[in-house]
Amino acid sequence: MDFSDLRAVYINCTLTASPGLSHTQLLLDRSSAIMQHHGVEVACIRAVDHVIAPGVYPDMTAHGWERDDWPAIAAQVLDADILVLGTPIWLGDKSSVCSRVIERLYALSGETNDAGQYIYYGRAGGCLVTGNEDGIKHCAMNILYSLQHLGYTIPPQADAGWIGEAGPGPSYGDDGAGFDNDFTNRNTAFMTHNLMHVARMLKDLGGFPAYGNQRAAWDVGQGFDHPNPEHR
Amino acid sequence: MDFSDLRAVYINCTLTASPGLSHTQLLLDRSSAIMQHHGVEVACIRAVDHVIAPGVYPDMTAHGWERDDWPAIAAQVLDADILVLGTPIWLGDKSSVCSRVIERLYALSGETNDAGQYIYYGRAGGCLVTGNEDGIKHCAMNILYSLQHLGYTIPPQADAGWIGEAGPGPSYGDDGAGFDNDFTNRNTAFMTHNLMHVARMLKDLGGFPAYGNQRAAWDVGQGFDHPNPEHR
Amino acid sequence: MDFSDLRAVYINCTLTASPGLSHTQLLLDRSSAIMQHHGVEVACIRAVDHVIAPGVYPDMTAHGWERDDWPAIAAQVLDADILVLGTPIWLGDKSSVCSRVIERLYALSGETNDAGQYIYYGRAGGCLVTGNEDGIKHCAMNILYSLQHLGYTIPPQADAGWIGEAGPGPSYGDDGAGFDNDFTNRNTAFMTHNLMHVARMLKDLGGFPAYGNQRAAWDVGQGFDHPNPEHR
Amino acid sequence: MDFSDLRAVYINCTLTASPGLSHTQLLLDRSSAIMQHHGVEVACIRAVDHVIAPGVYPDMTAHGWERDDWPAIAAQVLDADILVLGTPIWLGDKSSVCSRVIERLYALSGETNDAGQYIYYGRAGGCLVTGNEDGIKHCAMNILYSLQHLGYTIPPQADAGWIGEAGPGPSYGDDGAGFDNDFTNRNTAFMTHNLMHVARMLKDLGGFPAYGNQRAAWDVGQGFDHPNPEHR
Repeated sequence: MDFSDLRAVYINCTLTASPGLSHTQLLLDRSSAIMQHHGVEVACIRAVDHVIAPGVYPDMTAHGWERDDWPAIAAQVLDADILVLGTPIWLGDKSSVCSRVIERLYALSGETNDAGQYIYYGRAGGCLVTGNEDGIKHCAMNILYSLQHLGYTIPPQADAGWIGEAGPGPSYGDDGAGFDNDFTNRNTAFMTHNLMHVARMLKDLGGFPAYGNQRAAWDVGQGFDHPNPEHR
Repeated sequence: MDFSDLRAVYINCTLTASPGLSHTQLLLDRSSAIMQHHGVEVACIRAVDHVIAPGVYPDMTAHGWERDDWPAIAAQVLDADILVLGTPIWLGDKSSVCSRVIERLYALSGETNDAGQYIYYGRAGGCLVTGNEDGIKHCAMNILYSLQHLGYTIPPQADAGWIGEAGPGPSYGDDGAGFDNDFTNRNTAFMTHNLMHVARMLKDLGGFPAYGNQRAAWDVGQGFDHPNPEHR
Repeated sequence: MDFSDLRAVYINCTLTASPGLSHTQLLLDRSSAIMQHHGVEVACIRAVDHVIAPGVYPDMTAHGWERDDWPAIAAQVLDADILVLGTPIWLGDKSSVCSRVIERLYALSGETNDAGQYIYYGRAGGCLVTGNEDGIKHCAMNILYSLQHLGYTIPPQADAGWIGEAGPGPSYGDDGAGFDNDFTNRNTAFMTHNLMHVARMLKDLGGFPAYGNQRAAWDVGQGFDHPNPEHR
Repeated sequence: MDFSDLRAVYINCTLTASPGLSHTQLLLDRSSAIMQHHGVEVACIRAVDHVIAPGVYPDMTAHGWERDDWPAIAAQVLDADILVLGTPIWLGDKSSVCSRVIERLYALSGETNDAGQYIYYGRAGGCLVTGNEDGIKHCAMNILYSLQHLGYTIPPQADAGWIGEAGPGPSYGDDGAGFDNDFTNRNTAFMTHNLMHVARMLKDLGGFPAYGNQRAAWDVGQGFDHPNPEHR
């Protein structure tokens, strides 16, 4: 399999600005190294280093905010075949930076591609989560849900993460914590390959097949075989 | 596109035994009608009509329970290319019957296919949710998470549902409630087609591509390009 | 403080029938031992040992099911000042047995006490969660939400639990796993005392204060100081 | 009952800066009007109008951020007996502003009061949620979980909200949408009164009873009747 024409964007949603240490980045690095090994072009964005304005419009400078770095990030996301959101866990939930990124991704959900599908169709999405004690699955179910809702295809086992035993303790990578966790390593390897496989499939098909899922066509009365034509 | 060689299983996780009215079934019927229109062979199982024992083993009669109808249901699920779980909402969450079905699906998660992948790989999964007031996304994020964790590929917009305004009110189909909801109808059409598209892709490829995701190979030391070979 | 006139019910929602080992029970035992030390009368019910019919009515034998042990359990719950739900974690979520118990608790949500409040008012609720790797908070937020929705008062830090590091591993109590986890022990102690404190307060007041929360009064037009009387 | 010595803080977590219309504010106003009717001193903070730095420390200007308005907000929160978080729903979840507020509340979780309890003990917490179609309970279970984890006591039925039927539609208050929803109005009245009742109880007791829940005492070896003294 040749993945060398694929592009991937990793968005690290840590609360810690550069050059501070992000434990989540350590896990992203392992996943992105596998992609790079296969020739995938990888970009990694640390969201907190940018000013991402609150709101649900594509560019918030048109809605009263002085600065908004989101449009440039969105361009990178739309230029890529794969999106991975990485988040730390706080109080059992994804970070506020991750929530912000999802809100802004959502701001483009009204746009459509040439086939009339939502703009994110034809791409693969996944997530990586680190914390010191609890919440990988809680964060992942929320993030993956949002990505598929936006139009991403979610491969099998599209999340990976590391947490320690219940209670305070080291974060991922502190004195090597988690680096030799076989479960985390296996899941990271599987999710990374599965994202590349799905992106490969979709790229080879020229995007997600365009029938039965085009917002534009639906809005002008195409019923897509719905059993109650009058209700569609 | 020809979908006529595909098989789909819908599991309705209503709390109401047959022949009682299941509002969730009314939504499943709309989705399955679209599949049948395309020649997909559809089976629909009302889980509550069966005795599905509690536990996390493939057959609970081997673990002290007198009766367990799950193995026969599991055989149908494994024989199908598509799985759709349908659930009503109670107190904002999926039904206990849906939880039970997920637990028992999980009971097979240790098994692998001929390629050494988890047994559910190569299939498409989605869900349908109905309630009278709140919780479609909460239920869907949990169900879709479980399905991808098991090995299902999740297409874009793989959930659909109907709820009414906050507060008590009609359930889906009561005096036609929700039947003309354009959002519900559109989402139902899109998720149904997207499940067929992903199942088609995977079937044409002879399953989910087998590299980087085989449990069996990992367990004997294959590192799948993990950047830290000693840690894999 | 004297807690010796209080009663508590612990419902263990393990999937394992007696006399099988329930790891969750080991944690319940630690909490209940503290209550018993203070003279609280404690009953512990292992739900899976009973036939609890699916549905959302108080007694499902009135709705087509042959047997339903729930009414007897409900009587114990309503006789107690404190309710603790204990659950194992499967695929990151509470057990199907726990979902079933919550559905059936909900079945009484239409009933009111002598003050016209929902029947569960005047009681304290909490939860205990065990698993081998992830999900305490996800389960707890769902269970505690349901309990407060039903009318229970939730004390500070009303949940406790134990999980190990990410990946397969021992369950609570396997070779003593978790027994010396200071975080789990502290949370268990705090939640147990806080439940007793809240139950004490409410009992001393003769129940939750009855103004502004009586369904019966609202339904006949009492507005409880709502700023828009015509809309109440 | 006299509530006139109580103070409440409402934090509106809308994404819309002043003077833009916040639909969530319309619901907060109804709740706060009830409190004011009873003489409670109410402050309402629109979080997005402030610069709340990302991070999990009490004051992020000590950690590299130029500006952080959080310490002043935290002072108001700690000065109040009641905290209500209000949030809009985006993609089924609470807003990023609400996540940020919770992270910063959490930043004080290591501090203790004079009794050695976590600093938020002795207060009542609740939430209000608005959206156009789905997610009140999902947001509420997360917010209420966080509040109880921090030390707040959660009264019965401590959340209220409004959403419309599945699909796009009016937000709360658009052309009066939701204003005459009896369920929303009743829940708003009940949650508001129940917050005042719990705050009253706790204030009359001089705080949450201090036994079995003091972090400081636990850390120096107090076992609080834990059944395994060596493990506590």
